[in-house]
Amino acid sequence: MPETPAHPVETLIEARWVIPVEPSDAVLTDHSVAVDGGRIVAILPTEEARRRFVAQRYYRLTDHALIPGLINLHTHAAMTLLRGYSDDLPLMEWLKAHIWPAENRHMSPDFVRDGTRIACAEMLRGGTTCFNDMYFFPEAVAEAALDAGMRAAIGLIVIDFPTAYAGDSDDYLNKGFALRDRLRDEPLLSFTLAPHAPYTVGDKTFKKIATFASQLDLPVHVHLHETEDEIHQSLAQHNLRPLARLQNLGLLGPGLIAVHGVHLTPDEQALLAEQGCHVAHCPASNLKLASGFAPIATLAGHGVNIGIGTDGAASNNKLDLFSEMRLAALLAKGVTGDAAALPAHTALQMATLNGARALGLDDRIGSLAPGKLADIVAVDLSGIETQPCFDPISALVYAAGREQVSHVWVNGELRLDNRQLTSLDERELKLTANVWQSRITH
Amino acid sequence: MPETPAHPVETLIEARWVIPVEPSDAVLTDHSVAVDGGRIVAILPTEEARRRFVAQRYYRLTDHALIPGLINLHTHAAMTLLRGYSDDLPLMEWLKAHIWPAENRHMSPDFVRDGTRIACAEMLRGGTTCFNDMYFFPEAVAEAALDAGMRAAIGLIVIDFPTAYAGDSDDYLNKGFALRDRLRDEPLLSFTLAPHAPYTVGDKTFKKIATFASQLDLPVHVHLHETEDEIHQSLAQHNLRPLARLQNLGLLGPGLIAVHGVHLTPDEQALLAEQGCHVAHCPASNLKLASGFAPIATLAGHGVNIGIGTDGAASNNKLDLFSEMRLAALLAKGVTGDAAALPAHTALQMATLNGARALGLDDRIGSLAPGKLADIVAVDLSGIETQPCFDPISALVYAAGREQVSHVWVNGELRLDNRQLTSLDERELKLTANVWQSRITH
Repeated sequence: MPETPAHPVETLIEARWVIPVEPSDAVLTDHSVAVDGGRIVAILPTEEARRRFVAQRYYRLTDHALIPGLINLHTHAAMTLLRGYSDDLPLMEWLKAHIWPAENRHMSPDFVRDGTRIACAEMLRGGTTCFNDMYFFPEAVAEAALDAGMRAAIGLIVIDFPTAYAGDSDDYLNKGFALRDRLRDEPLLSFTLAPHAPYTVGDKTFKKIATFASQLDLPVHVHLHETEDEIHQSLAQHNLRPLARLQNLGLLGPGLIAVHGVHLTPDEQALLAEQGCHVAHCPASNLKLASGFAPIATLAGHGVNIGIGTDGAASNNKLDLFSEMRLAALLAKGVTGDAAALPAHTALQMATLNGARALGLDDRIGSLAPGKLADIVAVDLSGIETQPCFDPISALVYAAGREQVSHVWVNGELRLDNRQLTSLDERELKLTANVWQSRITH
Repeated sequence: MPETPAHPVETLIEARWVIPVEPSDAVLTDHSVAVDGGRIVAILPTEEARRRFVAQRYYRLTDHALIPGLINLHTHAAMTLLRGYSDDLPLMEWLKAHIWPAENRHMSPDFVRDGTRIACAEMLRGGTTCFNDMYFFPEAVAEAALDAGMRAAIGLIVIDFPTAYAGDSDDYLNKGFALRDRLRDEPLLSFTLAPHAPYTVGDKTFKKIATFASQLDLPVHVHLHETEDEIHQSLAQHNLRPLARLQNLGLLGPGLIAVHGVHLTPDEQALLAEQGCHVAHCPASNLKLASGFAPIATLAGHGVNIGIGTDGAASNNKLDLFSEMRLAALLAKGVTGDAAALPAHTALQMATLNGARALGLDDRIGSLAPGKLADIVAVDLSGIETQPCFDPISALVYAAGREQVSHVWVNGELRLDNRQLTSLDERELKLTANVWQSRITH
């Protein structure tokens, strides 16, 4: 009886382990992922894959785990240019005496494009394939992401005061919508409405944003309950805590990505769950700015979908989701006093599938499954730093570093090949960083 | 007028930055370190160094920072063999159902030697040049450290119950002293008395240890106030908190290295300071085992000398002082609510000079200074992950990863050369890890 002829595909990736993230603790040993037309065609045992498929390109990753591309659920990518520019200062001094003046002096489409390109290089080299951004000149963010061949959710930022980018809330919104109209067919891009924060956006603007979000079916990406000051200020000004205020203004719902969520009462946690809101947990930034400890384990207990973000490089100072996964898993144990809280596979799910859900992209990315887009990361676990390896998910979350990422595919395209970027010139980006460092310092 | 003839030295290391750690925030740009006979001879501007010295070996590290070798102030190195063997479990279940049974089944000099060699490889590759160890079969730890050419403080472990290593406290002590007698002239080794913990060592044994420590001028390395359970148990059994008990038994003083120090009242913090005790802060382990948050900023405020440890790989799961420095600096901010707490240069000092002080070795290691032993680490800051670089100390602590360590010298000998170990065979160690993984799993 003749064998079925082998099916042609573009790419066949053989790996020691495939970790699909659905279900969250699954580990498939000696499996392969077949990719064609930018999508995952099949995930199957390697022996079977070799019979069933014939590929244009083979990758034999004998010591590696394949995971879904990591999703950075909150960043200000361009702020790589201010990485380490000022640290170890009280929050308001840091913002008012250092970060804001530097931004005011240098903010331009060039600053944002260059900073975002550096961020894309760092994120791709660390296994991040998609980032949810909020910054000025979002057209420059989009341009940098497309140059990098990286997936991005572009925040259409709105702040109720003028900046180099826009004059008033209508100006921000109009510029944002024009950008979205121009780029809405780019397969790598999606868009969010991004009102900066309760303390920088007024009721009238929030109401407009609620209306647009509902009409255009766009997620809303907003800093929320980051610091106690934010809550005190809101009580003083609006007689409401920020979350209650946003509820009154019609912002809560399954489109809301609440960034930080550090200070939340049990009722507020239940409300977020009831409304289907998402939380972007940024553990390193919350510590570095001394904002506090987000109640992640109890939020998850309420059923809130929680993804992970790095925040900007000025308050982290890495865009490294390996580091954030580990920190999230460790902190949850410290905060609850329960060493079983937030196990490794949950941390990995937060940095992948949960991020995709928050962005409304979980039908396309966030896990490895036939039919999903081929955003795939290979992590080499053969180094002495991850030996022995009793459990590859534990190794990924607790022992591995981003430097162990060897290959990254976005939409089926190879973007990192044995640690080398294929879409960006790292040497050129370092020169760019040097130029900006000189400008910012002098 | 004739120039002074150039002075011959073995090694001249030119670097973009030399960070001597004394004073803790100093950064010397375009400086060189001259090394001869295992010691630092001079630290001076590179232009001057080129005139004053002629070297057998030159290193031109144009994008690198030189720092003192990192000192891991608390580990159980051999436990690399149990890295990721079980995670995400409540502490007592983790110990009793997993870690202790595995140790009981496999404990032997071979286990300890192999596990410690893997740990040395990992630590050297991560810029650690000295580790303070506590484990069974300390002769195997010493042997592995000497093979690796790494500096180690060997803990002469004492526990009041029998193990594969020793039968009773006298047996532990006698074996420990015999080891010390045999190896006391090894320049890379020093020794501590290492009673395991208040809950595993009785009063009689602690008293003996206090006497020996004083007679032999040896530091005492002990787990202390790690968990609330430990304190409750001590109150139930001795009607004293562990620190008060050790004080009564004559253990407190400038020789005491108290590991963890998570649960300390303000009075206990003042007592540690008054007695000149040292604390080994293990932030990742304290979170992973849900022990709690050590009050590091207030301890430091009391004047207690604090170093940093990784603990064993079973409860971390890395032996990575870059990761621990960053976590210590971030956590202190979160715990105090003060973003200025534990600045980067303090974290670096904790992982170097403070560790040396705790071990009584600060006249020899812990900072870069003429006359000190040449334990030196070069960190390449040119990668996009640490660009731009406004402040190399911030870059080292908040942005760099251990993979950026390029060269490591111990006692003037090159132990890591462009990421390659010179004293250990990484491939062989991986095979060793595989063999132990099979044994432990089956």
